[in-house]
Amino acid sequence: MLTEQGSIQAEDITVQLPIKRVTEEGKTDAEDLVIREIPLTIILNNRELVTLLCSPGDMRYLAIGFLSSEGLIESKDEIKKLTLDDRRGVVRVETREDKASTDEVFKRFITSACGRGASFYSSADVTNRSKVQSKISVSASQIFALAKKFQLSSETYRATGGVHSAALCNNDEILVFAEDIGRHNAIDKIFGRCLMNGISTDDRMIITSGRIASEILLKVARRNIPVLISKSAPTELGVRLANDFGITLIGFVRGKRMNVYTNDWRVVTDG
Amino acid sequence: MLTEQGSIQAEDITVQLPIKRVTEEGKTDAEDLVIREIPLTIILNNRELVTLLCSPGDMRYLAIGFLSSEGLIESKDEIKKLTLDDRRGVVRVETREDKASTDEVFKRFITSACGRGASFYSSADVTNRSKVQSKISVSASQIFALAKKFQLSSETYRATGGVHSAALCNNDEILVFAEDIGRHNAIDKIFGRCLMNGISTDDRMIITSGRIASEILLKVARRNIPVLISKSAPTELGVRLANDFGITLIGFVRGKRMNVYTNDWRVVTDG
Repeated sequence: MLTEQGSIQAEDITVQLPIKRVTEEGKTDAEDLVIREIPLTIILNNRELVTLLCSPGDMRYLAIGFLSSEGLIESKDEIKKLTLDDRRGVVRVETREDKASTDEVFKRFITSACGRGASFYSSADVTNRSKVQSKISVSASQIFALAKKFQLSSETYRATGGVHSAALCNNDEILVFAEDIGRHNAIDKIFGRCLMNGISTDDRMIITSGRIASEILLKVARRNIPVLISKSAPTELGVRLANDFGITLIGFVRGKRMNVYTNDWRVVTDG
Repeated sequence: MLTEQGSIQAEDITVQLPIKRVTEEGKTDAEDLVIREIPLTIILNNRELVTLLCSPGDMRYLAIGFLSSEGLIESKDEIKKLTLDDRRGVVRVETREDKASTDEVFKRFITSACGRGASFYSSADVTNRSKVQSKISVSASQIFALAKKFQLSSETYRATGGVHSAALCNNDEILVFAEDIGRHNAIDKIFGRCLMNGISTDDRMIITSGRIASEILLKVARRNIPVLISKSAPTELGVRLANDFGITLIGFVRGKRMNVYTNDWRVVTDG
């Protein structure tokens, strides 16, 4: 049984706070729109797995996307029950098969779950993963147009400067959009929504507002997504993984320019 | 026995990679300076605790700062042995007393160690922590001058757009500076250096390039630091914790303006 999915309430993501605006000359009372940050504890089969710090909205999607990123859920069918206690910040997930019950998986989970941690770089998890299968191509002008639409969707970011956004898109449109204080959370919210609502990620692209480090690459590769776009910088490990996975990695999309770090054959131009 | 401390090698933090620079008209071969990202596994008393993804440089300081942030080390005297295997990305720390040996501490560690996780919001760890004790004040012009010096120190950031910086300073000078792809890591590198080299954090301030979320506040409060400055936005939970801990929280320092979110009595102006 699945409970009803929540939707983003933009007004819940931020809050007005009284502040002092200060210059050398003096202080004035003012208000500032500040992004909320709440703990969300994921309990999988009655076992507390992790507490994420996140933005309100799409919290069921975040939990499911996170579990799927960690390889603990593969499909919607595996979910027996999913309940969110908004007020206490707890998501309980029950699955038909408890993949986290073996110590090996649990240990792997603990390290790779960390926003700053990943034990899998030298392990079979990366080296045995097959390349992303997709022959799609996308034109430079389509990428510039998508990046512009993405920028316009990121309303909260423009208001507070404190939130990241991510989107799943095809060559012409943004299909799923999510915001969160965490870059990783925004992407997990997207993948959670895809999994719960049967939205395919094949031959599609991810745009993110954040930097592209290794963990983002791993999340994207797991969903067989061939193109990853950011207005920010990638890390060298991100570039190396994109190369290994056969992903087209695009950074610094600004105006009508971009850097293509790997597999540029998917990007076509008029030149 | 402590092995010799490493120093930052700026040239190791970034690497030149071949890329394609793409416009609608065509592609040109180019090079881009990309920030490195490497896994660092911390082994505490022969037990693998966590793998951080970080920038090279100051990796012993990062390990010690991280352990100290997690309450697993309080002083340099507790460290019996500290060895870094650069090539394999492993730091081994042996302490006189194994604080991580009880399951309770280990469980708490696992969740709060995560860049995105923290189980301690409702626990005694926050509610029983005493307020920061400091009567220092700082003038608005001192803060603007420090922010400018900090900006000039952040050379790597300007070159690649991919790294965060943090600094410990007094009213006039930057005392310790660190860079990392992770906001949290940059701050832990600073505190690790302070702990190893006997640099006091009392009555001093932290400047960070990154957003101020709850985990940064907890790290700063643990070191009794009264003022936290960022050119970016704080989260609401960050503001709330700053208020609870008696910390002066300053955001959006840009040019000659800033927002003071809490305890503005420490900031003096000419007005």
